[in-house]
Amino acid sequence: MLIVMNHTASQADIDKVIEVVSGMGFTAAPIPGGERTAIGVLGNKGYVDDSTIRDLPGVQQAIHVSKPYKLVSRDFHPDNTIVDVAGVKIGEGERPVVVGGPCAVESEEQILKTARFVKQCGADLLRGGAFKPRTGPHTFQGLREEGLKLLAKARTATGLPIVTEVMSPDNVALVAEYADLLQVGARNMQNFDLLRELGRIRKPILLKRGMSATIEEFLAAAEYILAEGNDQVILCERGIRTFETATRNTLDLAMVPLVKELTHLPVMVDPSHATGKRSLVTPMSKAALVAGAHGVLVEVHPEPEKALSDGPQSLTFPGFEALMADLKKLRNCLSCCG
Amino acid sequence: MLIVMNHTASQADIDKVIEVVSGMGFTAAPIPGGERTAIGVLGNKGYVDDSTIRDLPGVQQAIHVSKPYKLVSRDFHPDNTIVDVAGVKIGEGERPVVVGGPCAVESEEQILKTARFVKQCGADLLRGGAFKPRTGPHTFQGLREEGLKLLAKARTATGLPIVTEVMSPDNVALVAEYADLLQVGARNMQNFDLLRELGRIRKPILLKRGMSATIEEFLAAAEYILAEGNDQVILCERGIRTFETATRNTLDLAMVPLVKELTHLPVMVDPSHATGKRSLVTPMSKAALVAGAHGVLVEVHPEPEKALSDGPQSLTFPGFEALMADLKKLRNCLSCCG
Amino acid sequence: MLIVMNHTASQADIDKVIEVVSGMGFTAAPIPGGERTAIGVLGNKGYVDDSTIRDLPGVQQAIHVSKPYKLVSRDFHPDNTIVDVAGVKIGEGERPVVVGGPCAVESEEQILKTARFVKQCGADLLRGGAFKPRTGPHTFQGLREEGLKLLAKARTATGLPIVTEVMSPDNVALVAEYADLLQVGARNMQNFDLLRELGRIRKPILLKRGMSATIEEFLAAAEYILAEGNDQVILCERGIRTFETATRNTLDLAMVPLVKELTHLPVMVDPSHATGKRSLVTPMSKAALVAGAHGVLVEVHPEPEKALSDGPQSLTFPGFEALMADLKKLRNCLSCCG
Amino acid sequence: MLIVMNHTASQADIDKVIEVVSGMGFTAAPIPGGERTAIGVLGNKGYVDDSTIRDLPGVQQAIHVSKPYKLVSRDFHPDNTIVDVAGVKIGEGERPVVVGGPCAVESEEQILKTARFVKQCGADLLRGGAFKPRTGPHTFQGLREEGLKLLAKARTATGLPIVTEVMSPDNVALVAEYADLLQVGARNMQNFDLLRELGRIRKPILLKRGMSATIEEFLAAAEYILAEGNDQVILCERGIRTFETATRNTLDLAMVPLVKELTHLPVMVDPSHATGKRSLVTPMSKAALVAGAHGVLVEVHPEPEKALSDGPQSLTFPGFEALMADLKKLRNCLSCCG
Repeated sequence: MLIVMNHTASQADIDKVIEVVSGMGFTAAPIPGGERTAIGVLGNKGYVDDSTIRDLPGVQQAIHVSKPYKLVSRDFHPDNTIVDVAGVKIGEGERPVVVGGPCAVESEEQILKTARFVKQCGADLLRGGAFKPRTGPHTFQGLREEGLKLLAKARTATGLPIVTEVMSPDNVALVAEYADLLQVGARNMQNFDLLRELGRIRKPILLKRGMSATIEEFLAAAEYILAEGNDQVILCERGIRTFETATRNTLDLAMVPLVKELTHLPVMVDPSHATGKRSLVTPMSKAALVAGAHGVLVEVHPEPEKALSDGPQSLTFPGFEALMADLKKLRNCLSCCG
Repeated sequence: MLIVMNHTASQADIDKVIEVVSGMGFTAAPIPGGERTAIGVLGNKGYVDDSTIRDLPGVQQAIHVSKPYKLVSRDFHPDNTIVDVAGVKIGEGERPVVVGGPCAVESEEQILKTARFVKQCGADLLRGGAFKPRTGPHTFQGLREEGLKLLAKARTATGLPIVTEVMSPDNVALVAEYADLLQVGARNMQNFDLLRELGRIRKPILLKRGMSATIEEFLAAAEYILAEGNDQVILCERGIRTFETATRNTLDLAMVPLVKELTHLPVMVDPSHATGKRSLVTPMSKAALVAGAHGVLVEVHPEPEKALSDGPQSLTFPGFEALMADLKKLRNCLSCCG
Repeated sequence: MLIVMNHTASQADIDKVIEVVSGMGFTAAPIPGGERTAIGVLGNKGYVDDSTIRDLPGVQQAIHVSKPYKLVSRDFHPDNTIVDVAGVKIGEGERPVVVGGPCAVESEEQILKTARFVKQCGADLLRGGAFKPRTGPHTFQGLREEGLKLLAKARTATGLPIVTEVMSPDNVALVAEYADLLQVGARNMQNFDLLRELGRIRKPILLKRGMSATIEEFLAAAEYILAEGNDQVILCERGIRTFETATRNTLDLAMVPLVKELTHLPVMVDPSHATGKRSLVTPMSKAALVAGAHGVLVEVHPEPEKALSDGPQSLTFPGFEALMADLKKLRNCLSCCG
Repeated sequence: MLIVMNHTASQADIDKVIEVVSGMGFTAAPIPGGERTAIGVLGNKGYVDDSTIRDLPGVQQAIHVSKPYKLVSRDFHPDNTIVDVAGVKIGEGERPVVVGGPCAVESEEQILKTARFVKQCGADLLRGGAFKPRTGPHTFQGLREEGLKLLAKARTATGLPIVTEVMSPDNVALVAEYADLLQVGARNMQNFDLLRELGRIRKPILLKRGMSATIEEFLAAAEYILAEGNDQVILCERGIRTFETATRNTLDLAMVPLVKELTHLPVMVDPSHATGKRSLVTPMSKAALVAGAHGVLVEVHPEPEKALSDGPQSLTFPGFEALMADLKKLRNCLSCCG
């Protein structure tokens, strides 16, 4: 940490800061400058809480040099982590994966039909929500455990590992019984009780970026899971909230190569939630793979017009088939020109 | 809802939309225009899910006329709701209240000392966190039930009703046993399981606005609580996330008079979290009351330098005393010039 | 336009709205609903100013159905516009182009060296700023007319058409004398005097999206140029301002396929300004082409460490060479799998 | 500036940074830490351009300690600046002022009628736009010089000094001939040619904050004017662009006390543009004064329904009269309880 003093700070102000820093067990290194003094804080092994310093007299600013994460950081763990989801490998150097399926599991027929279709098109995993967070109280909230059972049936029928969301710590055990990859939704990215609970299980986790989370906060959230002992975490960009309302969210695709510099964890992209528009899903899926994403999550529904949630962003069956054909060609290209 | 067709939509496209709308049990009223046709959807008693319509051929846009909330709406419930927190009345026409206390309950001495001090300065309620959501995994997470017990002791000692946060549905019963007003934090504004659970208890709720929640989403979240039967809900503005980083968040103060037009529920403001800077708390508290807020939540700590969380935004004791003196004068003024 | 009345609006309120709409020369079509009345406005040939209506008694909201642009709209002009920049064709169906060059023209040696290098690597156009907008007053502001002359020399030496920014209406004639494609920077996207002036010349325009401009405002800005008679306009995404500060701006790449649905004009992407980081330029350039962009603008500098502006986002010569090799392979792939 | 090295940076990387810093004429002070080395840059008298350093090998981040402004900074100029607008004093310690008038000057009758009315209600200055920036090309663009003449007539009739916008450098002389206070609109906050030109005249300037400008960028823009020799600059908050669309912009009121800490220049607030809604103007005007603003700009129009621009945010005459009565009472209160 670097503590920047006001232009007008007195020597007594500087001495007080040095005293407080020393009291925290660190070394204070004053750097007198032309216009003001700055004080370096040395000896810390990670992020320092600045609240005891920021409001001392004469302090203008406390600047963090260390990040609020370490286990997820490439700086301290240069080798790529490969996440293994029931045999499907996800991460740098592996073939990018496609996760397909409906937003919500609605019925046995719907999920089985969709599972068989996405399998046949070449998808690697099946997604489907059993527990659904929804903005309004009177809309469909998911089939809950019944939905998990239907997902398991779909796995048996197709061999596809399944991905589904877990929304609260007390459902972790239940969901982990059925799912191969447990998803944390954007709204729960900072549900720390949930993250800690997921750190204690031995199943891989798909952590979605919060709608208004910075990349730094996103990585700090992943740190919660790794800190409890589970390093099988996949990060997933799904759009952030900005002033632009023409799309549901703004897909921050440049985060993909940036996050790959900062962390060893795999990164996926969900163009369905990011854009909210079916016609944008295919171009953004392709762009995601080219930008270096380790996979994409795509919503597909047999009859999007009748979907109980997120119909407008779901691909139809022919749309998904076309997407998979495009991605297949693109993956072939990438193996030569990537 | 109004469905806007493309300039080039065919009559068959229009007929298909009319058919789908009719199938949903509503009436479709086509409005041919100079450049395109629009189709009004009539007969709905509330928000209509547009997902079955938005992606029909020839549809350009589906525009919502109804809002995703009704019980919280002033349009349908013109009279102001007054929330009663253990005898302290909060709402339009009542004297604006001040809630004071530390971010987190840290020890018996800290909370008792603070409670006595804020009581003596004229505060109406005592706040203090027992369960704490924190960004990083290795920071202080709250005293949990022990913290609730200390808050109850502080209530006994001072007579101040207590406000504290509840973070998950399975803690609602426990927190409700101790708290007079249960707070939902910004991160949980769309934790729907939690909201529903809070709708079923008979204690008042303080619902904080999510960091990236629109006013419409905020009111829709409150609707979850009212829909379960609990109308004792206070809304609380605590800043939104924007591109500006000079303050912790951007306090959206204009939402106060706007929300008072839209809903009958009381509205409070938390200038401590909104700004993150001690020196801004007093001017923004005063501005909040003048803008029509029904109260303010202010963080105060005996030794902010040693606070385990949010020190830089906590007032010192002398700072809180000065704030209360200012607010007292201002409330006197407002009773004549408001 | 659709005018939505309050739930409690009286018949007199409704009649007043109908009267005002009629007075504007339009037809008002009331649509009584279960909960409120809406009033359609018919007969308008374009965007209606709602200011005379929004504040009548009983009016809740005025919803625009028409867009604030028409000439740029694909709805009214379905055929793609191909922009011809001194023989280089840009638009749908054409080979995507690469514009390379330094942020600012700094010296004859710098611009000639760069021009020859980008030409040799296969770039289609040369960029370079002669007039520079800068955030602080004491930094390099550009070589101005001298810079234009150096660009013209570089064109003579390489045959590459040149792209450069024009910052005020009174410089349009001067810049148009030298440039093959005149760029409007993000800060000037709503400099309407400038846009109108550019609408009156017969040279193509590269219009950059404002940092906080919605797609609708971006297209409305382009409408200014077309309205004066110049339809040779290329739109350019260069990142928007969001809460995320890890990148300089947030590249809104999903706008590319979306804008291609809304307008017939070509769309390019500037990954250098959008990300502000050299290491992200190549992945985002490739992603842009795959997403359907008609070209990319990339900053390249012989010695980025010594660049007078925007060094950290400029590619080195070897970096640009590698980018061009990648894009060449990708363009070959796209011709088969796009 | 502080340069933070990667955890894995080599001694050679560190030496190279030291060499480059020395080459810039500064002193480099390495601060070895537990996990990484940081390097302080000493001896600079202001903001250092980091572009030559940020992309050296092993550099993780360059952190600015100095700000991109100095003349506007309170750190270097502790005494408050009082701006004198034709005898009306604006700044700390002075009575807060009210600027009233229409968005645009539309006719002699309209501006004279409004000027007389606002004068009679107690306004201190008259505002009115002669040159208007508008989003769409086919809307009213202002009466231009004719508008300036009408403003001058209104000044003669009432004695109120006049405030009006200047949009381009070549109009500065013309506008300065008529106006007592020259306004720079939000869209032009970073029109540096304009700012420099305004720095060379001897009339006071009202600089509006750009819609997506940080406070730091806002102060850096003011620095352009002061750098040319004109220190009579008033800053004006007018709302920033955020994800919230319920109001036209988000009024960042907490910037008022914050900016007063950072600079000696006066700060005003424009609640009309910030909120875009008439009903929010009065509560936000009062809140602005209580938060410490040195004045407010309020739009008022004899017949807002017929205004050629911004009708919905303009107060009616009775509305303005009520506002002034409220503000008068509030200013009396503030003189005792402020």
